[in-house]
Amino acid sequence: MTPPVFVFDHWATLHQQRVEQVLSRALPGDDTLPERLHEAMRYAVLGGGKRVRALLSYAAAELAGATPLAADAAAAAVELIHAFSLVHDDMPCMDDDDLRRGKPSCHKHYDDATALLVGDALQSLAFESIANTNAAQALKQVQVLAKATGSRGMCGGQSIDLQSTGKRLSRDALETMHQYKTGALIEAAALLGAYTADQTDKQLITTLTQYSQHMGLAFQVVDDILDATADTQTLGKTAGKDALQEKSTYVSLLGLEEAKALVNTLYAQTLQLLAGFGPQADPLRGIAKFICERPF
Amino acid sequence: MTPPVFVFDHWATLHQQRVEQVLSRALPGDDTLPERLHEAMRYAVLGGGKRVRALLSYAAAELAGATPLAADAAAAAVELIHAFSLVHDDMPCMDDDDLRRGKPSCHKHYDDATALLVGDALQSLAFESIANTNAAQALKQVQVLAKATGSRGMCGGQSIDLQSTGKRLSRDALETMHQYKTGALIEAAALLGAYTADQTDKQLITTLTQYSQHMGLAFQVVDDILDATADTQTLGKTAGKDALQEKSTYVSLLGLEEAKALVNTLYAQTLQLLAGFGPQADPLRGIAKFICERPF
Repeated sequence: MTPPVFVFDHWATLHQQRVEQVLSRALPGDDTLPERLHEAMRYAVLGGGKRVRALLSYAAAELAGATPLAADAAAAAVELIHAFSLVHDDMPCMDDDDLRRGKPSCHKHYDDATALLVGDALQSLAFESIANTNAAQALKQVQVLAKATGSRGMCGGQSIDLQSTGKRLSRDALETMHQYKTGALIEAAALLGAYTADQTDKQLITTLTQYSQHMGLAFQVVDDILDATADTQTLGKTAGKDALQEKSTYVSLLGLEEAKALVNTLYAQTLQLLAGFGPQADPLRGIAKFICERPF
Repeated sequence: MTPPVFVFDHWATLHQQRVEQVLSRALPGDDTLPERLHEAMRYAVLGGGKRVRALLSYAAAELAGATPLAADAAAAAVELIHAFSLVHDDMPCMDDDDLRRGKPSCHKHYDDATALLVGDALQSLAFESIANTNAAQALKQVQVLAKATGSRGMCGGQSIDLQSTGKRLSRDALETMHQYKTGALIEAAALLGAYTADQTDKQLITTLTQYSQHMGLAFQVVDDILDATADTQTLGKTAGKDALQEKSTYVSLLGLEEAKALVNTLYAQTLQLLAGFGPQADPLRGIAKFICERPF
């Protein structure tokens, strides 16, 4: 029997809708005390975003032989961490951005103090969601996610970014910054997915680590390309900010054409990495294509 | 053989020094990338504070028959969460306080963006520290600490507090606010200590929950009394702020004398709660006395 043809768009839509429901259930209702905070948390998390990190968790879970049900908490947790980082990054003392996912950012729609608390509470909720599964490898998931979130991960990357604005970075320094800032959480998304299985093979973790390092880098290069070439309406966030803030980007460092070539190389290497796997790697292949072929 | 007399001051000093060392080891060095963030995290956490929450964890662990070694991560984690909350609370968009533990608060000594990231990264580090123990009940600890930190705990209490400033609260509403804002983490500190044992008796959890609810309330009433009566130098933070910001406090609600009487009642009830225990409850008795008899 021929296996059914895998259509990534269908798979992605299905799992985007799935994590949206999981997130909606995980977030306290806006009729729960404190109502305003819960309303703002829901505003910051629900109804937006491509959910790339959640898709990665589901895709990695599929490769590891775990069900989407087992991966729900992990997928939600990485999106909660991502949403918390967006809320805090948009605040006036950080990137000071009024627009996010095509609507006013959290501190604009509410206020700075609420945005601060929203981010803080979303982080706690991410860890609570994972821990409440009582899954066999839930503690491992907490370890991986906490490290990827903190000072040697995402928050650390933000700090390096702040220190680097206005400086011309070497390519090594730029890669380090992005490995912390976005790469760490993308890697965690994949590993958390794998750890939703009751046990996980070491070789699989190595493959997923390499996969997500390639994808983390590609994701950032594409982001830099889009920031330089797309308009605000297409992006759903303020375009052209990197140049305005004199940030080092892959476009400023390599030029537009070489940046595009780098994405293509990373995509080819990633497919090669997954060559030994069957259809259970199709979602990961689809995500790689989606990340590397975002229109630019 | 007569057991040695328990001297709380010695026990407290010993465990304050102990958690200081645990925290210093848990925090990345300020020579680790990103150096400035790590320096700021150490500035915000080390060398200050009475470490009441850590003492509670160690004391509860002793009652549960666990060693101080087993309780180190829990004690450090509750202090990391507490430190993160202080850093964020002091920021201009929240309480806007320049002084903390007798020195410039984190955002004054560094900057707002760094303070934001310090708080975020300290929260992650708390969960990472617990998860890395791989202890039998570590997942339970993550569950309890995450809930106590988030929107139905400490962050939620801050949100209620912000919404309540300038309003006259009923005593019920004031108690709810403080149960979220400080009570939840104090309760978590005790429970985390108990969960450092390989297994924990349900009755013990009930006793510790009641104990910490009494102590959480007493702690807040004493704080309100001190804010109204002590000077800034004695407190190590700005005194008289509650009246200035028109916050509802136990002093504004009950008057000074009735507030003091409430603390005495809570202390007596707490000793009664521990009456059935032997010397293994001495640290908890000592903490109750310490909280209720802070000079006022």
